Amino acid sequence: MGLVVQKFGGTSVGDAERIREVADHVARTRRQGKEVVVVVSAMGKTTDDLLRLADDVSPVQPARELDMLLTAGERVSMALLCMALAGLGVDAVSFTGSQAGIITDTDHTRARILEVRADRLREALADGKVPVVAGFQGVSTARDVTTLGRGGSDTTAVALAAALGAEVCEIYTDVTGVFTADPRVVPTARRLARISFEEMLDLAASGGRVLQLRSVEFARNHGVPLHVRSSFTWEPGTWVVEEDASMENAVVTAVAHDTSEAKVTVTGVPDRPGLAARLFRALADRSINVDMIVQNVSQHGTTDISFTVPKVDVASTVEVASAMAREIGAGEVAADDCIAKVSLVGAGMRSHPGVSATMFEVLAEQGINIEMISTSTIRITCVVRAEQVEQAVQALHRAFGLDGTEQAVVGGPSR
Amino acid sequence: MGLVVQKFGGTSVGDAERIREVADHVARTRRQGKEVVVVVSAMGKTTDDLLRLADDVSPVQPARELDMLLTAGERVSMALLCMALAGLGVDAVSFTGSQAGIITDTDHTRARILEVRADRLREALADGKVPVVAGFQGVSTARDVTTLGRGGSDTTAVALAAALGAEVCEIYTDVTGVFTADPRVVPTARRLARISFEEMLDLAASGGRVLQLRSVEFARNHGVPLHVRSSFTWEPGTWVVEEDASMENAVVTAVAHDTSEAKVTVTGVPDRPGLAARLFRALADRSINVDMIVQNVSQHGTTDISFTVPKVDVASTVEVASAMAREIGAGEVAADDCIAKVSLVGAGMRSHPGVSATMFEVLAEQGINIEMISTSTIRITCVVRAEQVEQAVQALHRAFGLDGTEQAVVGGPSR
Repeated sequence: MGLVVQKFGGTSVGDAERIREVADHVARTRRQGKEVVVVVSAMGKTTDDLLRLADDVSPVQPARELDMLLTAGERVSMALLCMALAGLGVDAVSFTGSQAGIITDTDHTRARILEVRADRLREALADGKVPVVAGFQGVSTARDVTTLGRGGSDTTAVALAAALGAEVCEIYTDVTGVFTADPRVVPTARRLARISFEEMLDLAASGGRVLQLRSVEFARNHGVPLHVRSSFTWEPGTWVVEEDASMENAVVTAVAHDTSEAKVTVTGVPDRPGLAARLFRALADRSINVDMIVQNVSQHGTTDISFTVPKVDVASTVEVASAMAREIGAGEVAADDCIAKVSLVGAGMRSHPGVSATMFEVLAEQGINIEMISTSTIRITCVVRAEQVEQAVQALHRAFGLDGTEQAVVGGPSR
Repeated sequence: MGLVVQKFGGTSVGDAERIREVADHVARTRRQGKEVVVVVSAMGKTTDDLLRLADDVSPVQPARELDMLLTAGERVSMALLCMALAGLGVDAVSFTGSQAGIITDTDHTRARILEVRADRLREALADGKVPVVAGFQGVSTARDVTTLGRGGSDTTAVALAAALGAEVCEIYTDVTGVFTADPRVVPTARRLARISFEEMLDLAASGGRVLQLRSVEFARNHGVPLHVRSSFTWEPGTWVVEEDASMENAVVTAVAHDTSEAKVTVTGVPDRPGLAARLFRALADRSINVDMIVQNVSQHGTTDISFTVPKVDVASTVEVASAMAREIGAGEVAADDCIAKVSLVGAGMRSHPGVSATMFEVLAEQGINIEMISTSTIRITCVVRAEQVEQAVQALHRAFGLDGTEQAVVGGPSR
């Protein structure tokens, strides 16, 4: 009998009605002869509400206590889902991250899973029960409650699927799958039936919000097939699997865009070894996640370094970079948060070297200036003005033949 | 350095402002040179909200999942209190029931504490930290999350005080202590400075709502002094301690009343051994808590049995009793929920046999008819008409010299 891990996000269990619908679907999957392990997030906006309450109480919020606070959310949703399943005659039993054997390091609010000791889940399955596991949470080697950071419930689901040898990890969300572009920007975007882990990784890193990078990495490393689908329409969605010969390998699989980052430039950096390293170490020490980095060839003994960071980190980035610039005798630090990234992703790029040239031509035809460029073997990313990014996405989607014939369907409430 | 356990109920941590006030008080207690262990309930109406949500989701609510659901509440309040303490520079660390070593049996929703393994709390105290423990919850011998039932947080606090050898267990609530009568009924009621465990037990069993019976039993059995006081005025309240020679031993310490019960009468019960036992066994099997039982002397081979049960259980009691009456050939089953209990409690009664006579005279003078009587060595309870109970309480309070000179002060929001 095959085992399926089904993960339901916050909007999928947003209220009592939704929880009952999820229970119906789990029961249906069981009737199809599958063993099921369920992973749930906190209901709807619970996490935001708890964070607001914490802000009301104290400006000082120790990470360990923040984890204790936030893990209340999944406790509620999983207990309610078990009740809904019991109401349908399905014997379900809830497990906290700790009870499910999710052992993490002690890095509170963004802990990493070290080990999965799934004995209790195996026992429950052997007893014919449906284990319902709290996503996002674990227990540290110091026996404290931890959380896995943003997208942590996806990671929990994938880790359990790997540990239990599931045939698939189904990620239910409020969209029907992974699209060739954001359907709100490109109405003719098509849902992809399949995509490789590598492409999905580059998509997630380039602004595709459907899956978190970390859970995709985990799935790839453990060979767990993912199936991204909607808990509002329940139709088949997008499979994320190992790349294989049978895959179509379109030159370009999807166009992604991202308006969440800002560009920071440090001018006149003396051209001495180790200066860039010192700058980025200082940023890493402040937990600032630097994405694209571009350094031009040195002229007159100095160079300019540009990089992108999340918009929320711009102020602290400028602070760190300015201090560093004074220290090393560099020039100005400038920040620009009216930029956006547009990316092409496709495994076929490996064998089609002309893709970047085409991309630059398409953008030039649209009168869109390129401010930064970065590439991997299966991705090209350009930084452009934020107000031109939708135009860029639409033009590229059309130019690379991604437009479908039908309108894309996006289920669920708008976010 | 003395150790104090401080327990804060739902209204004491009802919102962000109240949590900060509680943190102030804990910090103040630390500055007075005490070690502090804090026990908290869920915030305000959290438990009611969660139960309503469960009702919306499913009529079937397995007890194990109900416990998982409800224990989310203390998680939130204890994490928030730790943050508030951190904001004051007090190093606090939260512990779930499981982490605090509260080991219970597997009787979900009303588990009993089997053992307290407080090693982690001792370590935290040794590190100079303030442990903040979730009340009401524990972990069963089957490693499942359990709750201790109504008033469970008080029991947690007393159990920890016993395990850690605390000098006192302070129970903070929204009243300023234990009174000679309910101050809403008797404006001249006085706060008692001290009361013995035995008297407190009888008071709790007779309608005094300040402390749950079970936590008082636990405190008596383990010799833990309790101090009941207000988290709104922070003034000294009532100490509940071992009876000793220095105690005043007033003939009557307090007048209690209770309007939460109904009277059920089974008439014409054949006078054969074992019939009463069968009736009350059947009620116990339905978890119906029978309080007073009165059986008159048999006449003509049959007798009437009257007893009181919580009003919420009247329907099922009548159902069980009627079935039993048919089976044993008894007569009618009648229920009456317009009754109330009025009780006198006082350790001095042991040596003053005239108390019941005085009580009956006082009630007679007021034209109040007595429908049932039950006594213990330090308590006399009469069942009267519900609409006459306040008059009864006032008359008895006056007659036994309990009236104080000042108006009683009741802190906190009305409940």
